[in-house]
Amino acid sequence: MDDVVVVPAKKGKVVLKVDMLVQRTDVPAGMSYRQAARKSVAMCVSDFAAKGARPDSFMISLGLPRGVSSADVRQLSRGFRDAEREWGVELVGGDTNEAGELVIDCAMVGFGTGIVGRGGAKPGDVLVVGGRFGLPPAGLKLLADAARATDKFRSAAVSSALQPRPNLHAGLALSKFLTSSMDSSDGLARSLHVLARDSGVGFELDSLPVAEGVREFAAGNGVSFESLVLFGGEEYVIVGTVGRDSLSGARKAAARAGTELLAIGKATSSRGVVVLRSRKGKTVIPDKGWTHLG
Amino acid sequence: MDDVVVVPAKKGKVVLKVDMLVQRTDVPAGMSYRQAARKSVAMCVSDFAAKGARPDSFMISLGLPRGVSSADVRQLSRGFRDAEREWGVELVGGDTNEAGELVIDCAMVGFGTGIVGRGGAKPGDVLVVGGRFGLPPAGLKLLADAARATDKFRSAAVSSALQPRPNLHAGLALSKFLTSSMDSSDGLARSLHVLARDSGVGFELDSLPVAEGVREFAAGNGVSFESLVLFGGEEYVIVGTVGRDSLSGARKAAARAGTELLAIGKATSSRGVVVLRSRKGKTVIPDKGWTHLG
Repeated sequence: MDDVVVVPAKKGKVVLKVDMLVQRTDVPAGMSYRQAARKSVAMCVSDFAAKGARPDSFMISLGLPRGVSSADVRQLSRGFRDAEREWGVELVGGDTNEAGELVIDCAMVGFGTGIVGRGGAKPGDVLVVGGRFGLPPAGLKLLADAARATDKFRSAAVSSALQPRPNLHAGLALSKFLTSSMDSSDGLARSLHVLARDSGVGFELDSLPVAEGVREFAAGNGVSFESLVLFGGEEYVIVGTVGRDSLSGARKAAARAGTELLAIGKATSSRGVVVLRSRKGKTVIPDKGWTHLG
Repeated sequence: MDDVVVVPAKKGKVVLKVDMLVQRTDVPAGMSYRQAARKSVAMCVSDFAAKGARPDSFMISLGLPRGVSSADVRQLSRGFRDAEREWGVELVGGDTNEAGELVIDCAMVGFGTGIVGRGGAKPGDVLVVGGRFGLPPAGLKLLADAARATDKFRSAAVSSALQPRPNLHAGLALSKFLTSSMDSSDGLARSLHVLARDSGVGFELDSLPVAEGVREFAAGNGVSFESLVLFGGEEYVIVGTVGRDSLSGARKAAARAGTELLAIGKATSSRGVVVLRSRKGKTVIPDKGWTHLG
């Protein structure tokens, strides 16, 4: 490896993203080094997917605790190879250091034209999400506490927390339809508020995109399913808007990429206000991120 | 700031570098947060300089200890601004996390044609360095121990350790002359061995590029000046080779960029062997990096 890495330029602008994974906050009990390595790349891929930009290469800076085993280092390599295969990206360089805990910083570079921003939603646009919410926060709760769940739900929830699966193909396919979008790694509510603020609109939701089994899991463990869905975080799902005329095309494009695109509401002119409409009326959804999950 | 950062493509290939600074190993006692921030960028700039590639933008991933003060965070910002001004680069994005100690990962992107590699030295090429060695390791020793030095030397040595000054202009000006090069952040001896190995040559040095006062400092503190010069590390100086016919042009180009280019020896056909020639004969210079400095 040379002092620098050289990547041939491809069509479009250069798109960059860094995301740092730190053991104490990003690696739950039960996550292997292999999964942590893969997750550090997934965090970047998710942002590229939400913007419709194709990632090309990534570099990894590692901070390794003193006394880390060679088996652990092999696990990290496996995780990066998992990511390479899964999203068609290449690990091209990096830097290794001693640190007090595991630190993995992924710097991703890619190329793109027509990057989807956060500020393009217009009143009347349809609010869409590229998946259902609540599984990863339930999985984190299962890893941390003695929460109760069916075996099937436990397996799905824990897997979603340990192996996040941003859908890059869906992001690339959807980009030409989206008027605004971002990923939801800080939670659905936070994403909605950021899009609302940056676009100068509000959102009115007709329904929450609840993943299968989350209602039952929440009821069985004395937590609110709305909290899991809205404020859970660690979700790697696209949240965005499309013009009303584009919804059908966007749905088909997402379906071809293996993602069900759900229309959950619409953009309104009530700048910065995000509400959920139900039979009981409208409830304001506050701007809380995953850090506030009680 | 959006999920990703978009940088307009410039001429040439995309050049990338990541370098992680970790408090325990890269931040000596006496280095401020401002200096640590600037140094994290200097580490990347130095590699770009040695390759003749122009850095354009950088992203910073921060790991901050819990309870870091807002004054400390302002100091970090100042250090990044220092770097922006000094090397004409722009901080375009980043990520902030909680960590057990200060971690600063700099991911730099730039553009370049004709990147200088490590493998192009030919027997007969002139071995050149873009500066004199030994000050930063002396400075680190002064920061760590009760070493003795004149006030003038102490000031110069400590400054070189806390404020590394890679000469980007010189690197860009020299790139068309260099047949091989790399930076010397792991020490002069390590750089010579890497260039020798990658080029399939050896090096014979006629002299060591000793910085002013280093001989006296070493003698006064019972250490060998050769160790400080060869194995000290934390030097951000270009080490490379030029064809014999190019030496004069390279020297003039370096001088215009404010750097004295020193010819300290030549490449030989003794693959992988690095020797220092003196009146007493030839001494082999071992392949030791700064981590081995006793």
